[in-house]
This record gives sequence, C-alpha cells and structure tokens, in this order.
Amino acid sequence: MKLYGFFNSSTSYRVRIALALKGISYDHESVNIRIGEQATESHIYLNPSKSVPVLLTDQGVKLTQSLAIIQYLDDHFPQIPLIPTESELKSRVLEFSYVIACDIHPINNLRILKYLTEQLNVTPEIKTHWYQHWVSEGLNAAEALLRNQPESDFCFGDQPTLADICLIPQMANAERFGCDITLYPRLMSVYKRCIQHPAFISAQPKLQPDFLD
Amino acid sequence: MKLYGFFNSSTSYRVRIALALKGISYDHESVNIRIGEQATESHIYLNPSKSVPVLLTDQGVKLTQSLAIIQYLDDHFPQIPLIPTESELKSRVLEFSYVIACDIHPINNLRILKYLTEQLNVTPEIKTHWYQHWVSEGLNAAEALLRNQPESDFCFGDQPTLADICLIPQMANAERFGCDITLYPRLMSVYKRCIQHPAFISAQPKLQPDFLD
Repeated sequence: MKLYGFFNSSTSYRVRIALALKGISYDHESVNIRIGEQATESHIYLNPSKSVPVLLTDQGVKLTQSLAIIQYLDDHFPQIPLIPTESELKSRVLEFSYVIACDIHPINNLRILKYLTEQLNVTPEIKTHWYQHWVSEGLNAAEALLRNQPESDFCFGDQPTLADICLIPQMANAERFGCDITLYPRLMSVYKRCIQHPAFISAQPKLQPDFLD
Repeated sequence: MKLYGFFNSSTSYRVRIALALKGISYDHESVNIRIGEQATESHIYLNPSKSVPVLLTDQGVKLTQSLAIIQYLDDHFPQIPLIPTESELKSRVLEFSYVIACDIHPINNLRILKYLTEQLNVTPEIKTHWYQHWVSEGLNAAEALLRNQPESDFCFGDQPTLADICLIPQMANAERFGCDITLYPRLMSVYKRCIQHPAFISAQPKLQPDFLD
C-alpha cells in the first residue's frame, strides 16, 4: 500500500493516523504541495483534484479524499473500527467529523490561503484573521457537540474514532496559526490525550520522512 | 420527522433529494439564512454550527451536517440505498461526493461570500471570480472521476446515489453564478437526467414552501 501525501497536509495526517491505529504498514510518497508538486501532470493523473492524499492499494485501487480513504480502510481492515456501527454513535461521529472536514478545513487549507494572498492581495494580518475566524466558528460548534456527550477519553467513548482523526490535525494547525485552543476544554482534553497516543504520535508531521523545517 | 432548512441552501437541497428518493414524508421548518435566522439563540441550540439543515427524527434524534443526515437516512430507511454497500463502488461514490461537499461547496457558501464582501470588501466581480474559480477546480476533478467510469444514467450506475445528490445542487448553483457548466459533458449528462427525475424535481428550491423570489 502506498500513500501519496505531505508531512504537514492535515488530510494526509488524518490518513496516517488511521493507518497507524489499524497497524497497517505502507510506503510513503512525498508530494511537496509547497512547491506545487500536486499540480504536475503525473500527479493530476493520480488525483484530478490536485491534492493529497492519494492511497494506492496492493490491489491497484487508487483512491483520493481522506474521508473516503479512511472509510475504505475501515471496510477492509475492520479489526479496529474507526466509524462505529451502532447507528446513533455513528451519526454523532460523522456529524462531528464533518464539522471539521467540511466547515473548517476546506476554507483554511493552503490553496485558499494562497489565493487570499496572491489573488486578493490580503495582508498577513487579514489572512490570519480569516484563518482564526473560521477555526473559532468551527471549534465552537465542535465543542458544543461534545458537551452533549458524556465525558470520555476520546471524542466519542474510550477508543479513537474518525472524530479524533479529524480533530487532532485541525487542533495542531489551529495552534500553529496562533488560535487560542484552550477556549475549548472538551476538545483540549481529547487533544492532550491523543498527542500522547502512539498511533497519533507516529503520524505527526515532524516525524515524517519528508518533514521540512 | 422534521427538516429545518432553507429553500436555496444546497445542503438542505441535498437532504430533500435524499428524503424524496426514499419516499419519506417530513415537516419543513424554514430557517431564513438570508436574514440570519441560523444564528438566533433558538437555532444555535438546535445547531451550534449556525447552519442548516437539521433533521429532527420522530425518535427525538437531532442531527446536523447533510452528509451525516443522509447516512442516517440510509441506515434507517435502507430500501432505496444511496450509499452502495459494494466496497469499490462505495469508495467511488464517497470520493466523488467529497469533491463536491469538501472541495467546492464549503468555500462558496453564503457565509464565505458574505465574509468576502463585508469583511474583505471585495467587488462583486472578484466575488464572482472566486466562486467560479473554485467551481471550475472542483467540477474539473469531478468530471475526470466520472471519465474513469463506464457511461451510465447517473454518476455511478443506473440508480441515483449520494454522488448525484451532491452534484445536482452544486450544478444548479454553478449555473446560477454564471459558470459554464457545459464544459463538463459527463456531469451535464447526469444533471440533465436528474432534473427530470421526480425526486430531484420535488426537492428543487423553487418548489419549496419558503421560496423567495
């Protein structure tokens, strides 16, 4: 199995966590999105969305979109489930995951921030305000969703799920962009636990072979 | 069952199509996002993300995020499946759906366009260019994904799936914003078929009780 990704791409980070939680070994192919390698002809052939990650399975299945990849992994390696099968819990996990994956991440990823700077000529301060605004909107909602749940080690219960997989890269990014993540006590409690967890540790950007300072 | 939505919210439109395809009747509660009803205290209690749609089931389950809602409907009303169970087809449907739901829609929805206008003071031309740029990036990718598939009535096979449910509101919106959707022949072929389909027709914005001209 081969994962095309980049060390500090949040969506690659999600898939790395999923692979690590399931104990699946894979080859890592770096696609440096800082210098536009995602928009080369050979990469567009792999992924017309000009993005990472892309999973290439041993059976020759090529799959893009981190959430579709993680669902694929969950179907094919079900021993350690990441999306619960019990209906209401599954709904809660998906709802929370989409708050991160649809309402926060797409608006703040590299291509959008580049567009703001290069096309709209916004200042670094305005770009940072944009980033922090959408993080604040989204994490407030995510925190409220967890407040409806009993306290637990991870977002939903005592095992990591897709919700934690989406949350941790987003929290790490938010911290990097100077957002005050201590405003979200339930999210912080999960974040602190996850960053001590071996699978989450092994997936960290700074431990990837293509890490750049 | 009650759906809190708005006639021209794409994500509400998705859920309406899903409900119609499954033949589920429901009560419609209008949340006028043009005048900020999604950010009132009573709505935030329903949905901390300050958005629509929200589904309230007869069992008292309250659920937000259109894709989580549609997955819930698929689990509870499985007679007409919208997410295939066969693994590779399921992956293709999810991958395509996320291209729309993660890579296009979140960047172009009302709150973002309002931010561009009200906070960044961009001109109507720049706002339209922003909209059309991200639509073009996303629909190009979606078209490429369909080109890898055999020709069929709907995105993936001869029955509508989540992929069509995500595509149709996006195509309708793109058309409304002056994007040239004829550039995507496979998407157009599906679009033309879907807008003749009774379930898709009944979910159209202009046929909703809260339609405003």
